[in-house]
Amino acid sequence: MNDLKSKFLEVYSALKSELLHDPAFEFTDVSRQWVERMLDYNVPGGKLNRGLSVIDSYQLLKDGKELTDEEIFLASALGWCIEWLQAYFLVLDDIMDNSQTRRGQPCWYRLPKIGMIAVNDGIVLRNHIPRILKKHFRGKPYYVDLLDLFNEVEFQTACGQMIDLITTLEGEKDLSKYSIPLHHRIVQYKTAYYSFYLPVACALLMAGENLENHIDVKNDDYLDCFGHPDVIGKIGTDIEDYKCSWLVVKAMELSNEEQKKLLHENYGKEDPTSVAKVKELYNTLNLQGVFEEYESKSYEKLISSIEAHPSKAVQAVLKSFLAKIYKRQK
Amino acid sequence: MNDLKSKFLEVYSALKSELLHDPAFEFTDVSRQWVERMLDYNVPGGKLNRGLSVIDSYQLLKDGKELTDEEIFLASALGWCIEWLQAYFLVLDDIMDNSQTRRGQPCWYRLPKIGMIAVNDGIVLRNHIPRILKKHFRGKPYYVDLLDLFNEVEFQTACGQMIDLITTLEGEKDLSKYSIPLHHRIVQYKTAYYSFYLPVACALLMAGENLENHIDVKNDDYLDCFGHPDVIGKIGTDIEDYKCSWLVVKAMELSNEEQKKLLHENYGKEDPTSVAKVKELYNTLNLQGVFEEYESKSYEKLISSIEAHPSKAVQAVLKSFLAKIYKRQK
Repeated sequence: MNDLKSKFLEVYSALKSELLHDPAFEFTDVSRQWVERMLDYNVPGGKLNRGLSVIDSYQLLKDGKELTDEEIFLASALGWCIEWLQAYFLVLDDIMDNSQTRRGQPCWYRLPKIGMIAVNDGIVLRNHIPRILKKHFRGKPYYVDLLDLFNEVEFQTACGQMIDLITTLEGEKDLSKYSIPLHHRIVQYKTAYYSFYLPVACALLMAGENLENHIDVKNDDYLDCFGHPDVIGKIGTDIEDYKCSWLVVKAMELSNEEQKKLLHENYGKEDPTSVAKVKELYNTLNLQGVFEEYESKSYEKLISSIEAHPSKAVQAVLKSFLAKIYKRQK
Repeated sequence: MNDLKSKFLEVYSALKSELLHDPAFEFTDVSRQWVERMLDYNVPGGKLNRGLSVIDSYQLLKDGKELTDEEIFLASALGWCIEWLQAYFLVLDDIMDNSQTRRGQPCWYRLPKIGMIAVNDGIVLRNHIPRILKKHFRGKPYYVDLLDLFNEVEFQTACGQMIDLITTLEGEKDLSKYSIPLHHRIVQYKTAYYSFYLPVACALLMAGENLENHIDVKNDDYLDCFGHPDVIGKIGTDIEDYKCSWLVVKAMELSNEEQKKLLHENYGKEDPTSVAKVKELYNTLNLQGVFEEYESKSYEKLISSIEAHPSKAVQAVLKSFLAKIYKRQK
């Protein structure tokens, strides 16, 4: 484990300890143990890319000047707020999607004696974010901007989840409603804002920047690259669940009448034979290849967008982010 | 319908229309209709006491001076934020409690094609609050205090819901863990802060007061009166659900060994015979009478607390609130 990551994990322990002794609530031993177990199970188990990138980005914005311990702590705390936000979304999404596993272990709500209490645990995770922000940023000139930022990004993510869920209901009636722009919008709202824009925006605020001067970081081209990571390889149960995925949308676009008929008949079915037929069609259509080409084209487009940005420091932040994402897939 | 309530409902329509055209999200027709139906079903159908009381309280704090249209609009908008917050809690609580009905109609998640999408709808309701606050209060000197206030109260409510849920799990193992202080703490966190403190605090902020000068409004005596409304009459399925209610706690306190045995054997059982036995014991112990005495004593204690408050205007706010609650029950 590198030094940055171990420092980042130390900050997790510090934040957790503060939350378990938050004076705004009189804990009992049982409720304190409950929250600790819930946090350890759901918050730190991911790749932590989003959280760590706040520190990276802040470092780049400071032009390589060495960060003070306080700066590292604060950037880490913001990074953890993003990880907390993600944990909140994942705990609730797993309930909504009726999922079995997450990050290689059973979903939180599937554990004995948890069940629907997990809904409230998700809410508690969400509520920890403003507790962390208030404790460590209340006196900062950008405090109110941080609150607005987290509120806006959470709103957009919830809207993205809403169109994903509604689209799936509609798709069950008519698969031809699925399209690339619709898929794109779902990914943009449900994943891209909190995964890509939020870490960069946190670093910009900490560096004293006004986010209104950086609305281009919310531009579609940048966000677009987050449409990719979960497209191929990690199909999960998208086929069974009738999800409006990049794959099914592209398959519909490239299919002849007979292949479309196959999709209509087999997409969204639970039985393994149907699922296998859909996967076979994806192979026949060479979606892996189509995707790779699409990806390399959008990578180039993205690099041009970034290089058009007036600030070299922001360019560096965005390129560093991009490198992480592309490395993750290859 | 009186004039104030009809004005209040007009503000609901205005806020809803803004939310359905929020530029932070690109609505499709289907998603806009979804949100509108969800809001109309869940937000305005209650008694609206909490929301209306923000306007009442603000009026009292202004010493009876006539309010401008803008003041009425802003106080109403804050009142609606509280109603939105309540709708969010109720939509999710009904899922967690596996409830059937709410306000005389099926729970939202029980409607066809809704199901677990209701979890996200609850989240969307919650996210509308900062949207409303940002649109109408961003330039006010108390904007950041409003955000902090809603965040803190939501956190405390989520903690209250957590101890309620965990307590029920523990109670299933051992009924004797239920006690008056535990019941009191659940009600205080889960209900009292958002029902009682929040409307008063919103009005105080609008009137330019610093909440730190009014922490006594959070004092237990004031909050305590919210332990009452749902105690008798509206037992609901507390018996079947093993809830740590005032009634079961008091019954345990007043029971002899034989009666305690009856409670241990029948509390938390689904079958109607067991439920009837528990209710019969409540009657035998005259819990209705015990409750009325407890209520009138705490009413007197509360009035004394209020009259000790240094500000006559705040006294008037709290008394007006109290009158509404006690009227509601009698």
